[in-house]
Amino acid sequence: MEPEKSPVSAAETGEQTVEQTVEQTGEDLDLDLASIFVSDAQFNRNIFFDSSPQAVRLYMLYNHWGLKVALFFFLLLDLSLALFEDPALVHLPLWATLSLELLCVLVFAARLAHYARVIPPDKFWKDPKNICIIAILTLTLLDMLIYGSLKALDCPGVRWSRVLRPLLLVNVTEGRQLRRAVRSIRNALPQILLVFLLFIFSILIFSLMALKLFSKRGLKTTDGAPYFTNFLHIVFDLYVLVTTANSPDVMMPAYNSSSLFSVFFIVFILVNVYIFMSVFLAVVYNNYKKHLKEEVRQLVRAKRHKMARAFAVLQQKSAEGAEPVVTHDRWSRLVRRVRPDISHAHKELLWSVCDPEEKGAIGKLAFVQLADLLNIEVITLKQRPHPLQTLSPALYLSAPSRLLCTIVLHRGFVVLFDLIILVNAVFIALDEENPLISNSEWFFLVVYLLEILLKLYVHEPRAFFSRHNFWNWFDTVIVVAALVATVANSALKSASGYTSRQILDIVFILRVLRLVRVVDSIHRFRAIINTLIRIGPAILTFGQLILVVYYVFAMVGMELFQGRVRFLDSEDPERSHCGNVLLTDSAFARHNYCKNNFNHVVSSFILLLELTLVNQWHVLSSGFSLTTHPAARLYFILFHVTVVIIIINIFVAFVLEAFFVEYSVEKSSLQNSVEKKIQELQLGVQQEKMEENLVNSMETMDSDQENGQKKKPTLVFKIASKRYRTVDALIQRIFENDLDPEDFNENEDETNGNFSNPTFNL
Amino acid sequence: MEPEKSPVSAAETGEQTVEQTVEQTGEDLDLDLASIFVSDAQFNRNIFFDSSPQAVRLYMLYNHWGLKVALFFFLLLDLSLALFEDPALVHLPLWATLSLELLCVLVFAARLAHYARVIPPDKFWKDPKNICIIAILTLTLLDMLIYGSLKALDCPGVRWSRVLRPLLLVNVTEGRQLRRAVRSIRNALPQILLVFLLFIFSILIFSLMALKLFSKRGLKTTDGAPYFTNFLHIVFDLYVLVTTANSPDVMMPAYNSSSLFSVFFIVFILVNVYIFMSVFLAVVYNNYKKHLKEEVRQLVRAKRHKMARAFAVLQQKSAEGAEPVVTHDRWSRLVRRVRPDISHAHKELLWSVCDPEEKGAIGKLAFVQLADLLNIEVITLKQRPHPLQTLSPALYLSAPSRLLCTIVLHRGFVVLFDLIILVNAVFIALDEENPLISNSEWFFLVVYLLEILLKLYVHEPRAFFSRHNFWNWFDTVIVVAALVATVANSALKSASGYTSRQILDIVFILRVLRLVRVVDSIHRFRAIINTLIRIGPAILTFGQLILVVYYVFAMVGMELFQGRVRFLDSEDPERSHCGNVLLTDSAFARHNYCKNNFNHVVSSFILLLELTLVNQWHVLSSGFSLTTHPAARLYFILFHVTVVIIIINIFVAFVLEAFFVEYSVEKSSLQNSVEKKIQELQLGVQQEKMEENLVNSMETMDSDQENGQKKKPTLVFKIASKRYRTVDALIQRIFENDLDPEDFNENEDETNGNFSNPTFNL
Repeated sequence: MEPEKSPVSAAETGEQTVEQTVEQTGEDLDLDLASIFVSDAQFNRNIFFDSSPQAVRLYMLYNHWGLKVALFFFLLLDLSLALFEDPALVHLPLWATLSLELLCVLVFAARLAHYARVIPPDKFWKDPKNICIIAILTLTLLDMLIYGSLKALDCPGVRWSRVLRPLLLVNVTEGRQLRRAVRSIRNALPQILLVFLLFIFSILIFSLMALKLFSKRGLKTTDGAPYFTNFLHIVFDLYVLVTTANSPDVMMPAYNSSSLFSVFFIVFILVNVYIFMSVFLAVVYNNYKKHLKEEVRQLVRAKRHKMARAFAVLQQKSAEGAEPVVTHDRWSRLVRRVRPDISHAHKELLWSVCDPEEKGAIGKLAFVQLADLLNIEVITLKQRPHPLQTLSPALYLSAPSRLLCTIVLHRGFVVLFDLIILVNAVFIALDEENPLISNSEWFFLVVYLLEILLKLYVHEPRAFFSRHNFWNWFDTVIVVAALVATVANSALKSASGYTSRQILDIVFILRVLRLVRVVDSIHRFRAIINTLIRIGPAILTFGQLILVVYYVFAMVGMELFQGRVRFLDSEDPERSHCGNVLLTDSAFARHNYCKNNFNHVVSSFILLLELTLVNQWHVLSSGFSLTTHPAARLYFILFHVTVVIIIINIFVAFVLEAFFVEYSVEKSSLQNSVEKKIQELQLGVQQEKMEENLVNSMETMDSDQENGQKKKPTLVFKIASKRYRTVDALIQRIFENDLDPEDFNENEDETNGNFSNPTFNL
Repeated sequence: MEPEKSPVSAAETGEQTVEQTVEQTGEDLDLDLASIFVSDAQFNRNIFFDSSPQAVRLYMLYNHWGLKVALFFFLLLDLSLALFEDPALVHLPLWATLSLELLCVLVFAARLAHYARVIPPDKFWKDPKNICIIAILTLTLLDMLIYGSLKALDCPGVRWSRVLRPLLLVNVTEGRQLRRAVRSIRNALPQILLVFLLFIFSILIFSLMALKLFSKRGLKTTDGAPYFTNFLHIVFDLYVLVTTANSPDVMMPAYNSSSLFSVFFIVFILVNVYIFMSVFLAVVYNNYKKHLKEEVRQLVRAKRHKMARAFAVLQQKSAEGAEPVVTHDRWSRLVRRVRPDISHAHKELLWSVCDPEEKGAIGKLAFVQLADLLNIEVITLKQRPHPLQTLSPALYLSAPSRLLCTIVLHRGFVVLFDLIILVNAVFIALDEENPLISNSEWFFLVVYLLEILLKLYVHEPRAFFSRHNFWNWFDTVIVVAALVATVANSALKSASGYTSRQILDIVFILRVLRLVRVVDSIHRFRAIINTLIRIGPAILTFGQLILVVYYVFAMVGMELFQGRVRFLDSEDPERSHCGNVLLTDSAFARHNYCKNNFNHVVSSFILLLELTLVNQWHVLSSGFSLTTHPAARLYFILFHVTVVIIIINIFVAFVLEAFFVEYSVEKSSLQNSVEKKIQELQLGVQQEKMEENLVNSMETMDSDQENGQKKKPTLVFKIASKRYRTVDALIQRIFENDLDPEDFNENEDETNGNFSNPTFNL
C-alpha cells in the first residue's frame, strides 16, 4: 500500500475522521482540508496525508511553492556539482564540492523528514520512492566518506554515487510527470525487448552470411584494412549500418568487387532499417498509448474521488432527506484559499458555470468539476482607457491623433513593417564593413523603436504587455536589447577604438532574431507556431527524461574515458593525434574530433548529443575503444539502444499524439461551457474579430467606445484557447473522449491494478 | 464526370436499362451483369461500364486475368527497356529497343481502345486517366521519332519521354492502389508545403546568423577550406545538418574555436531536426489518415451500391407486395460465376452465413454482404488419411509406426532440431577449410532431409504442403536447394578440381538461411513475423510508389550525370579520381565512391537507395556537382524532400496504422459470423489446439481417429485469420468501426466531393 496508491481506502477511513475534525475545530480546518483536496485534485497529487490538524497544516507547508522552488534549486545545485568536481570544467577544491554536496544531502533529508511527518509511518515505509531516496542519500554519504578519505591519502578514487544523483529527480514527490514517463517506458520494455531480440537475431544471421560471402575474397576497405573477416567486427559494422552511419562506405568494397553483392546490402537495409525500425516505433508507440490511457483513467478517478471528499467536508443539508449541497459562500471561500490569485469576477464566472440556475448552492456533480474548471486558463482583461486619454482627452481624441491610431491599426502598417524587415534581412546579409550598411543599422533600430512607441500610443500599455502577448514581448525585448548592445558597442569603439567580439556577436544574433517576427504576420505560420508552443511544456517532460539519461551516461563515460582523448592548442605537436599516440592515423583524429571527449561534463553532454544524432557515432566510438579497450563499444551501443531506439521513439510517439489531439479536438466540453457562460454574460471578447491577438481586439473596443452606442463592461474574459496549465490536462484531453463523465464508482481492485505503482524501482 | 467517380448516377440510369435487358435476353445475361457488379464490388473497381450486352461481354473480357497479366508484362517490359537503352547495362541496337517500345505502345493503345468500347464515349473523354495515357503514348511516339531521326543523323538526343513511363503504372485501370497512395500524398501536399516553408525560413534565419557569427573569424574546415563564408553554402550545409549527414563535422571548426558556439548548433538541431522532423511526420500522418478515411467511406458506399444493383438484377418476388429476394439457386449460380475456384462446400458455408434461418432465399441486406464474404479467406482442408495408411494400413498403424509418429509430433522433436540448428550455426561460423567442418555439412544436410521425410511420414503430404504452411515450404525448398547446390559443387570439384565461387556462394547463403527456421519455434517471434507477413502486401503498394519515383529520378539523373563519374579497373591510373580530373582530391573520390554513378539504370537505382538512407548524401551529391555545376545539388535536395520527407513518412504512417489495427482489432464482425457458422456446423478445426499450425492440428485429428470415438467430417474449414485478399480490405478494416453498416443512402454531393477524383493529373 503505497501512499499514492490508495486514495480509495483513504476516502473510506478519511470521511469518518473528517466528521470528527469538523466537530472539533470547525469551519477553518474544514476549509483547509477541502482546499487541500481540491488542489491535490487540480494538480493530480496522490498523497495519502494524515487528516489530523497538525498533519494538514504540515502538508500545506509541504506543498508551499517556496519549499518546492528551494528543493529544485538544491536538486539543480547537486546536479551541477559535476561542473566543479574532478574532471572539472571549473576547478574547485575538494572540500568545497563535498560540503556543497553535504548541504544538498541535508536538504533532501529534511524534505523527506517533513514528508514522513505528513503521512502515516506505515505508509511512509511501504513507499519504494522513499526507500529509494533514503538509499540514494545513504550511498552518497558513504561514497563521499570513502572518496574523501582516499583523496586525503592521495589514492585514486571513483565518485560512483554521482550516477545516482539524477534518480533523485525521478523519486521526489514533485517528479510526477517524469515518473509517469519512466513508468510508460518500463511497461513497454518487455515488448521492445522481444522485437530487439528478433532484430539482433536478424543481424547475426546476416553477419554469418557476410562472413561466409566476403571473408575469403581478400577484399580491402578504403583504409586498406581487411574487409569483413572477423565475425564480431561484422556484427558491429552491420549494427552501425542499421543506424545508417556507415552507409554507403561499408558496402563499397563488396560492391566494387561485384555489383551482385549490392543485393545482400539492399535486402539487409530493407529488413533491418525500414522494417525493424518502423516496428520499433510501432511497438513503442502502441505500448505508450495503451499504458498512458490506463494511467490517465486511474488519475481521473482519483481526482473525482478527492473532489468528492472535499464535497463531503463542506456539504450541508438544507432539509432532512434533501440532497447535500455546498453553498455559494463556502464555495467562494474555498476557491479563495485554493487560488488566491484569481480575481473576484473570474470566481463569480466559475460559480455561474457551476450553478447555471442561480440556486445559490451546488450539488456533488457540479462541485466535482471545480478542479477542471480551475485548470482552464481564463484571461481577465481589464478594459481601461489609454493613460494618455485620461491625461488629456481632448488631445488624444483629436482628429490627427485618431487618424494616427487608424493608420497604426491598419493592415497596411503590418505589411509595411514586414517589408522593412525583409529589406533589413538583405542589409544584414551584406558586408557590415561598408559604412553605409553599418550606419543603416541605426536607421532600422530607430524605425523598430518607433513602431513599438506607435503601438504603445494606440494600445493600452498594460494590455499590450499582458502575459499572453508573446510577440509583443518578443519584439520589445529584442529591439531594446539590440539598442543597448549597439550603443554599448559604439561607445566602447569610440572610447577605446576596440570592438568587443562578444558584444558584436550578441548584436548580430539580436539583429537576426528580429527577422523572426515576420512569421507572426502570416496567419497560417502563426497557427503552426502556436501549436508548437502549446505542446511545448509537455515536451519538456521528455527534456527532463533526456537530462536524467544523459547525466547517468555522462558520469559513467567520464569515469571510463576521461583524459584518453585531449584537445590541444594548435601549437602542440601532439594535436594531430589528440594527445594519444594510439590515435595516430585513426579516423577519429583524421576527422579532427579531439574536442569530442569525456574530459568534463559539458563536453560529455555535447558528445552525447552528437551520439543521439547518430551520424559518425561509429567513428566517435572507435576513438574511445582504440584508446581503452574494444569492449568500450558496448557503452556506445547501449547509449544508442537506450536513447535512439527507446527514448526518441517515445518522444516521436508523444509529439504525434499531441499533434493529433491539437488537430482533431476543438475544445473540451468544460471549456465550452465556460465560454458559453462568458458569452451569456456578455463579458466575452468578440472572438471572430479578435483572432487570438489582443491588439486587434483593442481596436474593436476603441471604436465601440468612440461610437458611444453602448457602454461596454470594463472587464472582459477570454479563454486562453486550448492552452493547459498542467501537462496532465493535455494528456487527459487525449483520452477524454473515452472517459465516462458520470463514473464515480471507484473499484479498489482496479485502483490497485497496473497503474498504481507510481514509484521508480532501481 | 469521370467513370470511377459516378457509381451513383450509374445506378440510377442503370437500373432502368437493367429492367429492359432482363426482358430481352433473360437469365444468362442477368447473371453476367450481376457477377460483374459483385466482382467490381469485391475488388473495389469503380468503372462506369455500358450495360448493353456487347459492352458487358467486352467488360468481362477486359477484366480477364490473362489480359491483365499481359498488360503488366508489357508495363514491366517498357520499364525494363532502360536496361538496354543508352546508357545501357546490356547494350542492344537502337532499332531493337525502339521496336520493343513501339510494341509496348501498341499494346497500351489496344488496351485503351478496348476500354473505350466498354464505357460510354462521353465518360471516356472526361476521364483524366485516359487523357493522361493518350498524352503519354503520343509523347512517347513523338520522342521515339525525334530521337530515332537524330540518331540516324548522328546527332545527340535526349530520350525525355522515358520519364513518363512509370506514370503509366499510375494511370492504368489496374493501378487503383497506387493511384490512391498518390492521391493521399497530393492531398497532404498543401499542409506539408506550409510546414516546409516555415522550415526553410528557419534554416535561412539560422544561416544568416551563422554568416554573421562565423564568416569573419577566419575559421577553416578540416580540409583547410574557409568555413561558413558563403551564404548559399551555409544554407546547404545547414540543410545537410538537418539530415544529420554531416554531423558533427560541420560543427567542429566552430566548436574547436569556442565551446560556446556549440549552443548555436544545439539550438539548431533541437529546432530543425527534432521539432520540425516530428512535425513533418505528424502532418503527413494526420493528412494521410484523414483523406484515407474519407476515401474508404466512399469506397464502401460505392461497393454497397454495386451490390444493391446486382441484387436488383437478380431479385424475384415470391408474392405481390412481399420483399424482393434472391433464391438459393440464383445466388449459387452467381457465386459460381464470380469465383469458379471455390469449392461447393465453401459456397454452401457462405450461403448458410447469409441465410441462417434456412429460408432458401435472402433479402437485400444479407445479399449485400456477399462481396465482403468472398474477401474472407476460408481455407478448405480436405481431411484425408495418409497415403501410406491407404497403401498398407496394418504397417502404418502398427505399434512401432505409431511410436514414431508420437516421437515426431512430440515437443522434444522440435527442441532437438532447434539445438541441431544452433550447433550447425557454430559449425558454419568456423572455418570451412578444416576437413572435419566441411564434411559435417553432409551430416547436417542428411539430418535436415531426415527431418522433412519424418514429417512427411506423419503428416498427409498435401496438407503438409498446403498453400498456407509457409515454414514447411521454406524448409523444404531451402534444404533441397542446399542439397542440389552442395552435390553440384562436389561433383564439379571432383570432376575438374575447381570450385565455382558462384555455386559456393549460393551454398553458403542457403546454409545460413536454414538457421532462420529457429524463429518459427519461438511462439512470440512467430507472432511478430506473422504480423509482418500480413501487412506485407499492403506495404508493396509503397514499393510500387517508390519504383515510380526512383524511375523518374533515375531517368533524369542519367540524362544529367551519365559518364561524369566512372568506375575504372584497379590498373587504370585515373581510378583515384574516378576518371574525371575535376574529382582529384575530392571527398567523393577519397571515399572511393566511383561506382556510385548514373552510368546505367541499375547503378542509378543503387545510388538512389543510398541517397534514401541519407548518410553521406552530401558527399555523393558533391561528386556530381563538382563534375557538372553547383546547381546539381538541387537534384539531390529535391530527391531528399520527395523521398525522405514525404514518401518515407507516409510509409511510416502506414506501417504504424497497420500495426495498430493488427494489435487492437481482433476479427471483423463478418469474419466472426463465418467462424460461428463453421463452429455451428461442426466443420471447424479446433483453433486452440491448432495454433495457426496445421501440423499440430493433424495430431488432434490423428488421435481422434485412432480413438475412433466419433467419425469426424472429412472436410474442415478454417479462417485464414486476419489475412486479407486485397489491400483495400485491410484499409477498410482500419476504419471499419467508424462506418455504419446500415448506411445505404448515397449522397451524390458527397460522392462528387473531395475523394471522387481518382485520377492522377500530370
